[in-house]
Amino acid sequence: MRLLLLNPNTSAAMTAAIGAAAREVAAPGTEIVARQPSFGPASIEGHFDDAFGAAGVAEQARLAAGEGFDATVVACFGDPGVDAAREVMAGPVLGVAEAAFHAAAMLATGFSVVTTMTRTCVIAERLVQRYGFERVCRGIHGTDIPVLDLEAAGEALVDTLEAAARRALAADRSEAVVLGCAGMAGLAGTLQARLGVPVVDGVAAAVKFAEALAALGLKTPKTGDYASPRSKPWAGWAAGFGA
Amino acid sequence: MRLLLLNPNTSAAMTAAIGAAAREVAAPGTEIVARQPSFGPASIEGHFDDAFGAAGVAEQARLAAGEGFDATVVACFGDPGVDAAREVMAGPVLGVAEAAFHAAAMLATGFSVVTTMTRTCVIAERLVQRYGFERVCRGIHGTDIPVLDLEAAGEALVDTLEAAARRALAADRSEAVVLGCAGMAGLAGTLQARLGVPVVDGVAAAVKFAEALAALGLKTPKTGDYASPRSKPWAGWAAGFGA
Amino acid sequence: MRLLLLNPNTSAAMTAAIGAAAREVAAPGTEIVARQPSFGPASIEGHFDDAFGAAGVAEQARLAAGEGFDATVVACFGDPGVDAAREVMAGPVLGVAEAAFHAAAMLATGFSVVTTMTRTCVIAERLVQRYGFERVCRGIHGTDIPVLDLEAAGEALVDTLEAAARRALAADRSEAVVLGCAGMAGLAGTLQARLGVPVVDGVAAAVKFAEALAALGLKTPKTGDYASPRSKPWAGWAAGFGA
Amino acid sequence: MRLLLLNPNTSAAMTAAIGAAAREVAAPGTEIVARQPSFGPASIEGHFDDAFGAAGVAEQARLAAGEGFDATVVACFGDPGVDAAREVMAGPVLGVAEAAFHAAAMLATGFSVVTTMTRTCVIAERLVQRYGFERVCRGIHGTDIPVLDLEAAGEALVDTLEAAARRALAADRSEAVVLGCAGMAGLAGTLQARLGVPVVDGVAAAVKFAEALAALGLKTPKTGDYASPRSKPWAGWAAGFGA
Amino acid sequence: MRLLLLNPNTSAAMTAAIGAAAREVAAPGTEIVARQPSFGPASIEGHFDDAFGAAGVAEQARLAAGEGFDATVVACFGDPGVDAAREVMAGPVLGVAEAAFHAAAMLATGFSVVTTMTRTCVIAERLVQRYGFERVCRGIHGTDIPVLDLEAAGEALVDTLEAAARRALAADRSEAVVLGCAGMAGLAGTLQARLGVPVVDGVAAAVKFAEALAALGLKTPKTGDYASPRSKPWAGWAAGFGA
Amino acid sequence: MRLLLLNPNTSAAMTAAIGAAAREVAAPGTEIVARQPSFGPASIEGHFDDAFGAAGVAEQARLAAGEGFDATVVACFGDPGVDAAREVMAGPVLGVAEAAFHAAAMLATGFSVVTTMTRTCVIAERLVQRYGFERVCRGIHGTDIPVLDLEAAGEALVDTLEAAARRALAADRSEAVVLGCAGMAGLAGTLQARLGVPVVDGVAAAVKFAEALAALGLKTPKTGDYASPRSKPWAGWAAGFGA
Repeated sequence: MRLLLLNPNTSAAMTAAIGAAAREVAAPGTEIVARQPSFGPASIEGHFDDAFGAAGVAEQARLAAGEGFDATVVACFGDPGVDAAREVMAGPVLGVAEAAFHAAAMLATGFSVVTTMTRTCVIAERLVQRYGFERVCRGIHGTDIPVLDLEAAGEALVDTLEAAARRALAADRSEAVVLGCAGMAGLAGTLQARLGVPVVDGVAAAVKFAEALAALGLKTPKTGDYASPRSKPWAGWAAGFGA
Repeated sequence: MRLLLLNPNTSAAMTAAIGAAAREVAAPGTEIVARQPSFGPASIEGHFDDAFGAAGVAEQARLAAGEGFDATVVACFGDPGVDAAREVMAGPVLGVAEAAFHAAAMLATGFSVVTTMTRTCVIAERLVQRYGFERVCRGIHGTDIPVLDLEAAGEALVDTLEAAARRALAADRSEAVVLGCAGMAGLAGTLQARLGVPVVDGVAAAVKFAEALAALGLKTPKTGDYASPRSKPWAGWAAGFGA
Repeated sequence: MRLLLLNPNTSAAMTAAIGAAAREVAAPGTEIVARQPSFGPASIEGHFDDAFGAAGVAEQARLAAGEGFDATVVACFGDPGVDAAREVMAGPVLGVAEAAFHAAAMLATGFSVVTTMTRTCVIAERLVQRYGFERVCRGIHGTDIPVLDLEAAGEALVDTLEAAARRALAADRSEAVVLGCAGMAGLAGTLQARLGVPVVDGVAAAVKFAEALAALGLKTPKTGDYASPRSKPWAGWAAGFGA
Repeated sequence: MRLLLLNPNTSAAMTAAIGAAAREVAAPGTEIVARQPSFGPASIEGHFDDAFGAAGVAEQARLAAGEGFDATVVACFGDPGVDAAREVMAGPVLGVAEAAFHAAAMLATGFSVVTTMTRTCVIAERLVQRYGFERVCRGIHGTDIPVLDLEAAGEALVDTLEAAARRALAADRSEAVVLGCAGMAGLAGTLQARLGVPVVDGVAAAVKFAEALAALGLKTPKTGDYASPRSKPWAGWAAGFGA
Repeated sequence: MRLLLLNPNTSAAMTAAIGAAAREVAAPGTEIVARQPSFGPASIEGHFDDAFGAAGVAEQARLAAGEGFDATVVACFGDPGVDAAREVMAGPVLGVAEAAFHAAAMLATGFSVVTTMTRTCVIAERLVQRYGFERVCRGIHGTDIPVLDLEAAGEALVDTLEAAARRALAADRSEAVVLGCAGMAGLAGTLQARLGVPVVDGVAAAVKFAEALAALGLKTPKTGDYASPRSKPWAGWAAGFGA
Repeated sequence: MRLLLLNPNTSAAMTAAIGAAAREVAAPGTEIVARQPSFGPASIEGHFDDAFGAAGVAEQARLAAGEGFDATVVACFGDPGVDAAREVMAGPVLGVAEAAFHAAAMLATGFSVVTTMTRTCVIAERLVQRYGFERVCRGIHGTDIPVLDLEAAGEALVDTLEAAARRALAADRSEAVVLGCAGMAGLAGTLQARLGVPVVDGVAAAVKFAEALAALGLKTPKTGDYASPRSKPWAGWAAGFGA
């Protein structure tokens, strides 16, 4: 199968890193194609960034709609543009927050999210509520690590995350950790080994769940809330998107 | 006071109409400046359209941030880009769905939303949940009237809305109506007279609530979740937005 | 417009103070008429007091029903008698807790309530649940300041409230403060200046929202749950209320 | 044990009828003392009536506080004044809606409420939410029978209630009926026999639960939210209540 | 009346102790018959134990179905097998967690649960959610006392529970304690005297509520969700249960 | 990987059919081992049956714990014994209701469950609440098809299910169907082709999700709520389970 992996920010280094992380867990027959928007911020650390990331995901989904992808993964923990992509892509579309929450909920009675900037916690909190994980998600914890610092994650950063995760597990009385940023994709294994509880990376979870759904022939229904966009005039740099 | 009224779609006719509706209810000292994005769809009728509308609101808020507006209103019932605008504007920012829900909740034990395309109901439904109006909002009803048809709302269209509202009030056992599209801004008075229950137009409600908050000196707190966007590189047509 | 401001307790000093606070924020054309019940406790600090306050609001609303008020505000943070007043008054009726919650929810992702006696927190908590603000209200904090002590609020009392607000903001990770007693009406400005986050006084918020609703021609629907009271025999000191 | 049964309305006939119904189910050693307020409406059919009923319950509880009652029951389905009574009475205080909901929740996976005037359904709905029975209460149904008509409940009225209950059970897919008015206290047996599902009368349930709690030595805690009212000046006809 | 008291574990000492505790609170005419399953663990301290306890309750209920019991109580705080027993017993069936939650909710604005092993808290938490007590139950606290240690509860153990209860009351701002294990049945009186707040033992509460429901002629409805089990083949040691 | 597929009922024909359905969707390297309890009912159609099914799953999990399975799936829509199995199995354990709900929630804004006996709907409803799918699950619909009739599902039965699914989709305004019985495992493809919306079979979904979790090295945490059962005496036919 061919899986489109969309990085909603415009950091090429992060797009490459997320793509590599996805390929590590992908099944033998899965081809991963990683892309990023033509515009927008190099990282997503708030509502303003997120609005552009969502439009960037919508742009890339629109451009890729005819390429025959079997599934799409949106690789930013705020799940920006996932619903928009569902309207234009034929196969299932998964956000990495969504996938991580589902995975953790299948494993433990309660999990904690450890994320980057504290100001993004409210975005994760609203996703938790929207998806229905209020009871199994027992806490969302910022570390105030800037997203772009994750590109060169050294030992000190891993130590910081480990310490934050330990504090979160104790404070929340939870038994699994969800990594709250796609940029942490490569760190789940190390952290899981150190912490002794399941550590869920959303990129990996989304890739495997997308493979699972595609194998079962399950796709986004296009009969109602996720029907193709209605035809209408479009303006400015997006003028071509109305066709 | 100066109030920025942002129409998230790119229909100039609708921008003008919404601006006129806002001026009709504005207090004597309130100046209404109505604007629209430089790009995107002519109407917002789904998640794909909405992603661009939100980025368009963010764009216009960013461009207007230094102009000294006292408050901002986002005039589309999905409240696209409201959170993004809060990070860049100095005064309070209100969405019209948000404002309409608050107004209706102050009046009646239960209200019904009557909106345009049925496929947009899920967007309103999620806003209702996010804002906490699950109990007072007793139903959301699509009429499958395309948004752009509202630009030339004739008698037949008003009759259609009246009939839909009557059905909604009876089915939901509710006692107020919220108009679920900024394009219906001019119709509240007529419908209220016909229906005999409060009919809330979000544009009008948002303008009056924005005036109220501004008069009280209440602004979005910029100390945490709505702090100014973090500085970082931006790419493509939005390259200038990172400064 | 003429606005009836009902103080549910029988402290004439507080009625005067609340009236003065309301006049400070009222629009030029708004006349404020402040009244209090003919019976009941001098302050409301529990369920027993509250039951009499609610009946006192109902009494005063019933007596004022024919005087042509455009809107009514009930100035006690437990919102006693608001629903009763809605059945007899022609215009909108707002409680100050209700108004403060709505205002704070329009501004911040989360707010904290700072109130008087800890024993009244449960009353505010139930209002938060009833109105649907469970997610945006992140904490309710008692200071154990008796209500009547607010009548002569000196510097020490303001310091106490400021300290309590700072603790609440930190503990709740919230970014706005709601003052949980109508008797704090004059203190919002000072506290907002000191705290650097929005501080919402319910009396001021209710006056401005009442003006907003009245300007829009929005009234309590009298067709169902808030219909005029049914005619029936009344007994005792309230014998005249059944007509 | 001595049980105080408070009828919040001023209909002496209903006070007598409720007292008789209570005595029918009371245990041999239970003495039932039925009383009503010195003021207020002859029936409670809305928020305005309810405000006076609550104050009336508070008045009677205050007057009876020193008489050594072991438990108190408030016999109106809106549970008016229950919290107020808890602050002044030594033993447990139960509302009849509360008791009926608890009883029905112990029996069936879902129950329906059948009540009098449709306009009172919202009061029951809010109690259901406050007490936490949102999931087990599957519907609240008005019959628009005036409360005082229940005093002389003939065969036609019972037929009307039976029909309403049958419709409710089918529409709600529920398996028990809660009678939504203390005035229906004598009808539970007949209706249960006809309907073939449990029919819960709140007066009977409250009496038995009050006996159960009293037998176990369980009382309202007076250490916090239900502590005795704070001492303060009282005015008007209630001037004596502050001591 | 004859009341079947089922201990879901296989500790004969605990069956006897629970039976004795039940007899202490039972009304003069109530006969208590205490039984335990023919198989399974000697105590229930987790999901694996609980699965067998539930089947054991179902077994004993099935065997006792024809003996004319008026009501059944299941004496383990996870309420294992309560729903199964409802399908085969003629009278009402109550779990002790269920009964304790209902009793505490009638008394206080908030209660805390103090239980045995911390790992069982999640079971109590799910019951709280299922029954709708999320708001009134303010905390569930493990003491890591093994259940079987309760059989010989000495002074040190009571001191441990008292200390845990004091911490819970303070941390949760609650005003009543629910004992989270049927094995604590004899300790409520002592703890209530020491703590000065209501202490609810589920066994006692369930016995009294069962008596109350039976006195009112209220039984589990057998018309739907709790209808008698459908006839079908059964295998293995349970082969006789399908008749 | 080796996957243990547990059928909680004792119908060997159904065990074989579920095993075959699982093998059809399993990845090339996945070995499916299907087993059933040594005791209990031939189908699970209520709470009484379910209690034995849960104990049967616990029994089989206990017996298989040392066989090195990488993951376990419990193939009955009530998810009986899933938590018990988590305490004794090393790899992840998934129920088929759980898996189906997660899969449907990744695809559509709302789904409907179509199940067998109406009396089992309440079991599915409680799972929906426990797992947090209250908002995305829009309805649960019984067909009153006995479970064992599914063993020889002919054309008429498929027509019945199709008709029920169409009614459910329309009534619930949903866009995906979840098959509410493991016995329907072979019918998803046919129904999906006829209905034109995603049809989710929980057995297939659970197998693929179990493969996904196992591939990611994610297991049930054994550090807290799902720790191994505590050692204690066991009695009767289960005497050996305490070691």
